[in-house]
Amino acid sequence: MSPRADVTELVGQAREGKPRAVARLISLVEDAHPQLREVAAALTPYTGNAQVVGLTGPPGVGKSTSTSMLLSALREQGKRVGVLAIDPSSPFSGGALLGDRIRMSEHAVDPGVFIRSMATRGHLGGLAWAAPQAVRVLDAAGFDVVLIETVGVGQSEVDVVRLADTTVVLLAPGMGDGIQAAKAGVLEIADVFVVNKADREGADATVHDLRQLVAMSRRGVAGPSWRQPIVPTAAAKGEGAAEVLRALGEHHTWLAEHGELDRRRTARAEAEVEAIALRRLRAELGELRGGERLGELARRVAGRELDPYAAADELVADLRR
Amino acid sequence: MSPRADVTELVGQAREGKPRAVARLISLVEDAHPQLREVAAALTPYTGNAQVVGLTGPPGVGKSTSTSMLLSALREQGKRVGVLAIDPSSPFSGGALLGDRIRMSEHAVDPGVFIRSMATRGHLGGLAWAAPQAVRVLDAAGFDVVLIETVGVGQSEVDVVRLADTTVVLLAPGMGDGIQAAKAGVLEIADVFVVNKADREGADATVHDLRQLVAMSRRGVAGPSWRQPIVPTAAAKGEGAAEVLRALGEHHTWLAEHGELDRRRTARAEAEVEAIALRRLRAELGELRGGERLGELARRVAGRELDPYAAADELVADLRR
Repeated sequence: MSPRADVTELVGQAREGKPRAVARLISLVEDAHPQLREVAAALTPYTGNAQVVGLTGPPGVGKSTSTSMLLSALREQGKRVGVLAIDPSSPFSGGALLGDRIRMSEHAVDPGVFIRSMATRGHLGGLAWAAPQAVRVLDAAGFDVVLIETVGVGQSEVDVVRLADTTVVLLAPGMGDGIQAAKAGVLEIADVFVVNKADREGADATVHDLRQLVAMSRRGVAGPSWRQPIVPTAAAKGEGAAEVLRALGEHHTWLAEHGELDRRRTARAEAEVEAIALRRLRAELGELRGGERLGELARRVAGRELDPYAAADELVADLRR
Repeated sequence: MSPRADVTELVGQAREGKPRAVARLISLVEDAHPQLREVAAALTPYTGNAQVVGLTGPPGVGKSTSTSMLLSALREQGKRVGVLAIDPSSPFSGGALLGDRIRMSEHAVDPGVFIRSMATRGHLGGLAWAAPQAVRVLDAAGFDVVLIETVGVGQSEVDVVRLADTTVVLLAPGMGDGIQAAKAGVLEIADVFVVNKADREGADATVHDLRQLVAMSRRGVAGPSWRQPIVPTAAAKGEGAAEVLRALGEHHTWLAEHGELDRRRTARAEAEVEAIALRRLRAELGELRGGERLGELARRVAGRELDPYAAADELVADLRR
């Protein structure tokens, strides 16, 4: 257990841009420290100002290089940027991710940039619960932009990116079949498409496929809706950053003008409140009858005395008692 | 809403090996049909007999080819096999998985084999809830072996494989660095290691690395514990199936002799009961005050009137009322 923190002081220091204070606050929320509620209450007045951008794509599209390029471009505009890098906690992913993080290290000494890695947890609701808390810290600390980046591999990872105001989907040439097969899912989450490695063969075809996909998806749509832009980049050469930032800005304006920003932020708050409530209820289920109740019911299910629904009935009834 | 089913008749037909009855039962549990409880109760007396095997590994190790090889070998032993193939529902994964499934189609006409794909869901607790129900159907339908296979990419996908009696981790040559970086996670979930593509260069080094890893992890372990075997295979040539099945059989015997089988099945039942209870509580949270309560609290959080913990307090208090 970490020692008791002076939360008001920490929040003040975080807002002055002190990275250690930001890191400490995120640790307090990540570890569900006893002072968590105090932290949440202290942060609340300062939240709601950051532009929250999600960035995802399949492995190998140059996600970290793109994040790094966007970081540089945002810094040139004088923006302070917080990055929440979600590591899918697959037992197989350790090596590749380590390499990714190293590529972002050029920004590690910039006081206007704060990078935090967060692993998806082994527990139900872990990431759904922890990620919005960390975004809240970065928002309250006064970062103008909060970038949430994750490789688009698992459900819980993708869900987190969907918490953003604007979600960028990164693709690269040579994924034509993939785009066709995955079109519904990709169209559903993307606000902005970036086709990275646009200097490579096949980039035009990828852009063309995406353009068709976007056009098709708009058929029959009534009223004003957002048409996802498709921005070619070559992040390794630093090409295309300005165009991506312009697309992000346009989407943000569109969201604000159409009431969508409020709608998305309310949806984010809803997911956050629900995750906190479920986390607590889950803890309470585990603590019933001195922590013995769930195990006892499970033994009866494993022994075929009880079906799992009947067992869940008994568990929930105990919770209400 | 699908029509009312005669559950007793369906269970009887499933146990006679009728694939349509098995498929219908899985659909009933997957869709949370109103008859779900009736189905769960009807299945319970017949469960607990299948050997549940999880199979996972990083993309590109030949997971589907290996599954197909094991299917053939188990069929030669006269075993009936149910396969639950978990598709990580990343918006980017459509194409690759489609290809994988096609490779297993040689088994599609075999009445002793039942293959079902299940996508990870967009909802909290979705997979944790649905997968054990489907395993329960296959178990009750009398399949001797239930194989749960998934690419080891996201947390929820890996969690499902951990529900098995025995978990097989597939690796391939050329992943040496990956093994080193990921050793803790891999060692934690693997009961049996399979090094596929063992006819390729670097296979010996991978086997060697794994052997060292297993040996190191056993240092300081008191009492009898399972030493994970490392089985080389070349699934594309059909080589190594007998050795994998032998390792699976030995692990199953070890589990039974050391009381571990009961312990794992109780843990599985615990996860299942908890997931059902949380799913219900989540639905109840969403339905409070005619479905308005969560959204109302979320608006206040988004408007900075309330912090999310205070909002969750109000939500849980309403649930208890």
